[in-house]
Amino acid sequence: MNTMTKSTVGRSETFQDKPTRFPDTQVNGAPLKPITQVLIDRRATQHFKSDPVPEEYLEAILTFAGQAPSGYNLQPWRFVVVRERENRHRLQKAAMNQSKVSEAPVMIIAFAIKDEWKNQIDAIFDEGVRRGAGDAGIVEMQKAAATKFLDSFPAAVWLNRHTMIALTTMMLMAEAYGLDTAPIEGFDADAVRREFSLPLESEVIALLAIGYAKGPDKAYGGRLALKEYVFKEHYGGPWTLE
Amino acid sequence: MNTMTKSTVGRSETFQDKPTRFPDTQVNGAPLKPITQVLIDRRATQHFKSDPVPEEYLEAILTFAGQAPSGYNLQPWRFVVVRERENRHRLQKAAMNQSKVSEAPVMIIAFAIKDEWKNQIDAIFDEGVRRGAGDAGIVEMQKAAATKFLDSFPAAVWLNRHTMIALTTMMLMAEAYGLDTAPIEGFDADAVRREFSLPLESEVIALLAIGYAKGPDKAYGGRLALKEYVFKEHYGGPWTLE
Repeated sequence: MNTMTKSTVGRSETFQDKPTRFPDTQVNGAPLKPITQVLIDRRATQHFKSDPVPEEYLEAILTFAGQAPSGYNLQPWRFVVVRERENRHRLQKAAMNQSKVSEAPVMIIAFAIKDEWKNQIDAIFDEGVRRGAGDAGIVEMQKAAATKFLDSFPAAVWLNRHTMIALTTMMLMAEAYGLDTAPIEGFDADAVRREFSLPLESEVIALLAIGYAKGPDKAYGGRLALKEYVFKEHYGGPWTLE
Repeated sequence: MNTMTKSTVGRSETFQDKPTRFPDTQVNGAPLKPITQVLIDRRATQHFKSDPVPEEYLEAILTFAGQAPSGYNLQPWRFVVVRERENRHRLQKAAMNQSKVSEAPVMIIAFAIKDEWKNQIDAIFDEGVRRGAGDAGIVEMQKAAATKFLDSFPAAVWLNRHTMIALTTMMLMAEAYGLDTAPIEGFDADAVRREFSLPLESEVIALLAIGYAKGPDKAYGGRLALKEYVFKEHYGGPWTLE
């Protein structure tokens, strides 16, 4: 099929279904944290112990991240998982020398490659049709509409938006499993690209440290009150309960 | 204090603590969904019933969204909650006339205002010091470093990144409460700004429909296999289990 030869990906091994096998307790055996507790407990961890993250937990966190929604299901997020000590030290140097980057047993580099969707859109739309999510009769029209939208939209913004859905999912899953995390935006994107062989046309979006906190959390700095960031019906409309 | 007069926000009513009172069951009284189930069940809902979302659930969803992490705790996300029928129809027109936009009882417009952080950084850093999260002795130096970073970074990218953390949190909280959602990126940003009085310098980032699905979900389109989006140690490093 013409569309398959244009793709870098082939159907059979390229796609997966929803996760069915994954750890359903915290790493320490306690029940999974409810999402409310996840959101209350989550802090940007300052220092990490060296204890490793069990492989099956890491794999589940990465798999669930991939269930995030994306425009046209194009899933532009990409992740490099850095665990080797030497590589974590190289990443630390590219990340303003923050010590947590080499302390954490798992560092995730979240990035996305500009225009990579052009190589994948055929395979992804074909897979949608195969699974009954798309309609073969109009798939070419839908592909053209998606292409028109994406070609006219600032690529960096689109890639950041979507990758952050998957990265946030990853962060919250890790917390639900009783792990600690730290999202990091202080890094030299050029150095990260160079040190980890990312394509020049990639957008380096965030780093995420995953592991176990060492020492106490930093104090909670508070959050803006609801009325400062939520508005009723229009911008400036004071937020009040009904 | 000089820093307070420069802020649009004042300390006492402007900040909130972590949530302590919120619904701890689904809307139908069932236990909160575990995050694994949330991520497996979540679909971009195509059509919504008109049943309203209970006020205390909406408020909790918005409050938990505000617990998201952000660079320097600057929390740039802003949300307009659109529930009035006439306004949902106006939003539908600005959103490629997608019917779900007027069907859903709650529509969220997620946006962020360029440079608004400049009006809030003093109050937010002062609050951090007051709560023990910042150090009064170095707060001015930290503020200068934050300002230097933010002034040199593409604003649209930074605002999109952070707002998507809060929006993803909102989407997953809604699902945990047994509600259905649809994130929407097809809209005319100028029309949304105009119709909902958003500042011209705002970045309109996404819409999120919240309510109850009407009819069956669209079929699941599949996801890329782990080896397509996860790499070991460097880009291109094949993902294999240890």
